[in-house]
Amino acid sequence: MASVERKSNVPMSHPMTSGDGPHSYYKNSNFQKRVLEAAKQKVKEAIEDKLELNNPGFLGKSGTFCVADFGCSVGPNTIIAVQNIVEAVQRKYDDQQSHQQKNSSSLEFQVFFNDHVNNDFNTLFRNLAVPGRFFAAGVPGGFTDRLFPEASLHFAHSSYALQRLSKVPEEVADVNSPAYNKDSIHCTGFSEEVAQAYAAQFKKDMENFLNARGQELVGGGLMALTIPATPEGFVSSQTYLGLSNDLLLDCLMEMVKEGLITKDKVEAFNLPLYFPPIKELEAILHNCAYFSVERIDSLARHQNKWPVDPSLPSLLRAFAAEVFKQHFGVEIVDSLFERFAKKLAVNYETYAAKEEPLNTFIVLKRKMNV
Amino acid sequence: MASVERKSNVPMSHPMTSGDGPHSYYKNSNFQKRVLEAAKQKVKEAIEDKLELNNPGFLGKSGTFCVADFGCSVGPNTIIAVQNIVEAVQRKYDDQQSHQQKNSSSLEFQVFFNDHVNNDFNTLFRNLAVPGRFFAAGVPGGFTDRLFPEASLHFAHSSYALQRLSKVPEEVADVNSPAYNKDSIHCTGFSEEVAQAYAAQFKKDMENFLNARGQELVGGGLMALTIPATPEGFVSSQTYLGLSNDLLLDCLMEMVKEGLITKDKVEAFNLPLYFPPIKELEAILHNCAYFSVERIDSLARHQNKWPVDPSLPSLLRAFAAEVFKQHFGVEIVDSLFERFAKKLAVNYETYAAKEEPLNTFIVLKRKMNV
Repeated sequence: MASVERKSNVPMSHPMTSGDGPHSYYKNSNFQKRVLEAAKQKVKEAIEDKLELNNPGFLGKSGTFCVADFGCSVGPNTIIAVQNIVEAVQRKYDDQQSHQQKNSSSLEFQVFFNDHVNNDFNTLFRNLAVPGRFFAAGVPGGFTDRLFPEASLHFAHSSYALQRLSKVPEEVADVNSPAYNKDSIHCTGFSEEVAQAYAAQFKKDMENFLNARGQELVGGGLMALTIPATPEGFVSSQTYLGLSNDLLLDCLMEMVKEGLITKDKVEAFNLPLYFPPIKELEAILHNCAYFSVERIDSLARHQNKWPVDPSLPSLLRAFAAEVFKQHFGVEIVDSLFERFAKKLAVNYETYAAKEEPLNTFIVLKRKMNV
Repeated sequence: MASVERKSNVPMSHPMTSGDGPHSYYKNSNFQKRVLEAAKQKVKEAIEDKLELNNPGFLGKSGTFCVADFGCSVGPNTIIAVQNIVEAVQRKYDDQQSHQQKNSSSLEFQVFFNDHVNNDFNTLFRNLAVPGRFFAAGVPGGFTDRLFPEASLHFAHSSYALQRLSKVPEEVADVNSPAYNKDSIHCTGFSEEVAQAYAAQFKKDMENFLNARGQELVGGGLMALTIPATPEGFVSSQTYLGLSNDLLLDCLMEMVKEGLITKDKVEAFNLPLYFPPIKELEAILHNCAYFSVERIDSLARHQNKWPVDPSLPSLLRAFAAEVFKQHFGVEIVDSLFERFAKKLAVNYETYAAKEEPLNTFIVLKRKMNV
């Protein structure tokens, strides 16, 4: 039975496409970059308004400020994000020093780049090799686990990574479950059982993430997250992120008709991706004992829609190729994404008219005494 | 002029052969492993006798013990080395806790693996993916530079890495210099000018290394180094490490005769490797303001000689192939090391009769107030 192979409890780990070739994440992460650029100002504000650098003991004896980016991939976005953080903290520190007429003692930064163990850290490190204002380190491992010593981080960041689940929920790949997701490859939002299974997995991952970071951040430390969510009153397939997944299914079904893959194989396939309804996400955040919720906001909601640009197929390929490869084999990937590009061109009007996802920007603060 | 291309000031960076294929460092580091095994007991003793874990403020508020291995390559040796350190520190900590009848509060470890930016960190991270007793991070960059925040490390380790120079000394590749090293590819010890140039580069690299670590280690922190040196009264070519380089030159000259490479190219080639005369090494160590020298010792000097085993050609290949590749092109590497294996078999008696290098084991302690 095709579905049996998906029942493993081992968390899946699908890195972005490695290297810096034409299909790499490095060359195809413009969409994520626009999201990041929109978040930069909000991150600066959070540091300006919420970070209590002056609190005694906050920095520790050695005066090092430690930053971690979770789900960093290979750059350049992670580098842009951490440089923004480092600059904003440095500015605040300098202001405070001059205000207090102190001799500007120097602040040092250590920045940790985290992603799955099979992320291409070699490419990330080569991209980092520009003169930086920080000491860099790569940290391999899934971010639903503890990755750092207790109270060792001052700022945690994660952009467009928490929608990736640690694994496909077991029920949706189980042919005997009412949640078996035969007719789709993601959580469209139309099936209650499938939605519940995805929601439960997301909640578990998110809670694990928050509890791990709660232990790793010092009291008063900040966390800035950007997570694509589904707006109130809509389901995922009504947004263009959801529609992309539906179009990918159409392509797979074409390939079934041509005898390139089997129907069973497609029915058993599910993406480990979830765009939570905004209320679900908010409830999880407010429920976490370690953090106070300082801000939940959406990026550029009232400005122009995010451009849906012609690079979308490449972007999706960089993001998801590994998942398809592991299930269907490497030989189908080129064909799948070529079909997707064509389908997108044909459906462009539909696509552009879809609801935009809520690119949710979140600031959490580690409580002092938990 | 063939030598001009070597005059660059850019530090060279030659990683170990990556991956875990038949020629990889991962599969061909048994010699280094034996050195490491011999050092393990001495590292334990240093931790037992010299580490003042109980000193107030030594561990800092969060109670994390930070270890770094410099020149880690891809494993498994680096993992064996840091596990030995972690276990010894944990044992000492537990003993102290039970002695003081304290509730055993837990100690956490963060371990940093450092090597050049083009080291194969992806392979290292996959090799690390066994349940560990520490939080792991990779730190890319040359270890003659600062790589960590001030006072952020408690134990620094480096085994068989400091003999690799940050670059070939300029004079030995300069056809107009009296130190032009036309007739050899390393510092044989027979030419005074060549020896001076290599010695100066080693001194500079070693001082940079010690000054950087001096800033990074907390007061009372320890550093354990293993460095292959040349014993008193001998020159490098009289030890089997030096002889290996001489045999490699013989192979290159054979290839010149066969028209595979040019004589100019061989004359301009030098290995960025140096086995310092033991007195030179000792002088540099005693001269460093940051550290007190707690121990200088040689590994297994009075026991059996290190086995000279049939894996030596593979070992040298894993270690040096990249350097040859960059100078002569990838196409000569297979042939070069096949010739070397044959030459070694023919010269095995000579080889085994050579002086062994001084595998020098060093313990330094970061002074409290510098």
